[in-house]
This record gives sequence, structure tokens and C-alpha cells, in this order.
Amino acid sequence: MKLLKEYIEREGSVKDSSILKVDSFINHQIDPILMMEIGEEFKNRFKDKNINKVLTIEASGIAIAIAVAYAMKVPMVFAKKKKPSTMSEAYNATVHSFTKKEDYNITVSKEFLSPNDNILVVDDFLAMGNAIIGLKSIVEQAGAVVSGVGIAIEKGFQPGGEILKKQGIHLESLAIIESLENNTITLR
Amino acid sequence: MKLLKEYIEREGSVKDSSILKVDSFINHQIDPILMMEIGEEFKNRFKDKNINKVLTIEASGIAIAIAVAYAMKVPMVFAKKKKPSTMSEAYNATVHSFTKKEDYNITVSKEFLSPNDNILVVDDFLAMGNAIIGLKSIVEQAGAVVSGVGIAIEKGFQPGGEILKKQGIHLESLAIIESLENNTITLR
Repeated sequence: MKLLKEYIEREGSVKDSSILKVDSFINHQIDPILMMEIGEEFKNRFKDKNINKVLTIEASGIAIAIAVAYAMKVPMVFAKKKKPSTMSEAYNATVHSFTKKEDYNITVSKEFLSPNDNILVVDDFLAMGNAIIGLKSIVEQAGAVVSGVGIAIEKGFQPGGEILKKQGIHLESLAIIESLENNTITLR
Repeated sequence: MKLLKEYIEREGSVKDSSILKVDSFINHQIDPILMMEIGEEFKNRFKDKNINKVLTIEASGIAIAIAVAYAMKVPMVFAKKKKPSTMSEAYNATVHSFTKKEDYNITVSKEFLSPNDNILVVDDFLAMGNAIIGLKSIVEQAGAVVSGVGIAIEKGFQPGGEILKKQGIHLESLAIIESLENNTITLR
């Protein structure tokens, strides 16, 4: 996606050879016009999939997910990292974060997933793929189907993309980072 | 706001006399069309304020904030509850959550607030007002101004609304809950 790549080249910066800082437009400060364009792009890329719900994880997936859900005119659900006091029965999965070097639980109320759902899973970043695999587990616990995965920025030098494709997942990444070596952002 | 009140009456439920469960459309599953309508409503209510940035807290404020920011065509920033490894200098505030009975820190990178900013603070709920007061502290640390506070659902039986108004804040709440007594949602 040309617009997203332009943002990455203009505003992104390299923190070390594996961390791309994009917090001026995607995961701390957010450009809402870019988000809505991302929403339209995913709508087009998954237009034949009969998506009826968009799923992400709090917090930085929410802005993208709401934009996609608005474009597709379907509800959005975000998995929570803590089970709220108001939630009764839930589906759960454990996700390992390599960035934060810790495991965390993600949870979605059983009320909001059903066996008839065709789910589009979206997130801001794809690196090792663990968050997406956790979300896929939750979808499958509900008897529903992951009909696609939409990622804003895939780290092409990490194995997440290959792992998901080997599982037969239809993956669409709007920008793929080939390398962050030598303090330089190289896009595929 | 009529549409939001209809959602609350149709889909909301009372968990005890102080907790309103609205997770089918606002803070777990989210209706994106409702969000965009909320965005337009806040745009109208604050149209004379020269807002140039929208500020909220992760996670459940993000969907509303992105919708408001999109309507106003300004950037959105969300305060984080954990300082990410990529963030350098930041403004901080401590917020006490009465629901969760704990203190937590909120943080915004110094990069994304400046003394010239006219900030609209938005959130899904207003109860005791502590989260908003924390965000206001962060805005003031940056030398910027809170030009308004937009809340989707205010608990009118808790003091947050009065506390904010006594501080001279222009507060707009789209729905005010008068009472949750007797397992019944009473709107003001």
C-alpha cells in the first residue's frame, strides 16, 4: 500500500536492527485519515471472503480494526489482556511476546463469537506471529473460521508471515520490512 | 445523543447498582457505525474550540477517539498504561481506578504534545473523573490546554461530571445514567 509505505519512509525510525518506531502515526499518535485508507484497502483485499466480523487485540490493533470494520460495515471485537469483572464465560489463549519477553493471556467473551462467523483478524504489526496464532486459537475454540489476516506492517525478516501461510492462512500485509540493518528501513 | 441512548436501552445491562455492561457495542465488541456517529456528534459539539488533537487512554477510549479525530481531521494520541521500549521522554500521571481498586500510571511521549495544542480529551465512561484528571495533568505538563472533554456515557450518580465542571472544563456527555438501581437503567 503506497500511502502506508510513504508514511513509514517519511516518519518511521529504526531503534535497533529489529524494532521499527512508527509511533507518530500508527501506535501512539495515530493519523485517522491513514487508518480509514487502511480500512478501505483491507476491504478491497478481502472483498470475496464474506467477512462478518473483525477481530484484533488491544491496544494498538483497535484503531486499524475499527477502520476496517467501518469500511466493511461489520462489528469489531478486540481481545482483552485482562478479563474484566463484567465478562462471564470467555475463550482464552496464551501469547508469548518476544519484544516484552513475557507471556500474556488474551480473552474474548463467548457472547461475541459464534460458529457461523467468518473472521478477519487484523493487527498493526506481524513479527513472530504469536498474537495472530493466539487469536486464531480463540476463533477456532468458538467453532468459527479465520477467513483472512490483515497486517499493516510485517517484519519480513522474522518468520511470522511464513508460519501463518504454512497454516493455510490468507495473509495480506500492507507493507513488508525487508530489513532494518545499518539503521536503514528497507521495504520489500 | 439519541442513537447512543437507544443502544444503551436496547443492549446495555446492569451488573450491580454501579456497573453498566455495554460490551456488545462500545468496549469489547464495537459497532463502528455508532462510533462514527459519535465522532460526528463531538465534532459538532466542539466546533468552535479550534481542537487540533484528540487525546484518550488505551484501550476502550481508542475507538471513540479515532472516530472523533477522523470527523475533525486532526491526529489522535492515546496515553499508554506501560511505557514502551521505543518511548524516550514522556509526561506521566497516576490514576486511581475505583473499579479495579488499583493505581496505574499513564504516559504520553513528549513528542506528541506541544504548548500550542488545543486538546479534546475523550473517553468511553466518566465515573469518578480520575482518568480525565490524569489526562488533564499530562496536557498541562506539556503547556497545552484541555479545550473540552467528550464522554460517551457519564454515570450521573457518581461525582466525576461535577468535579470536572468545577475545574472549569467544558464537558459534553452523550448519555448520562441517572441510576442503575433496581436492576434498571434510568437515563437522565
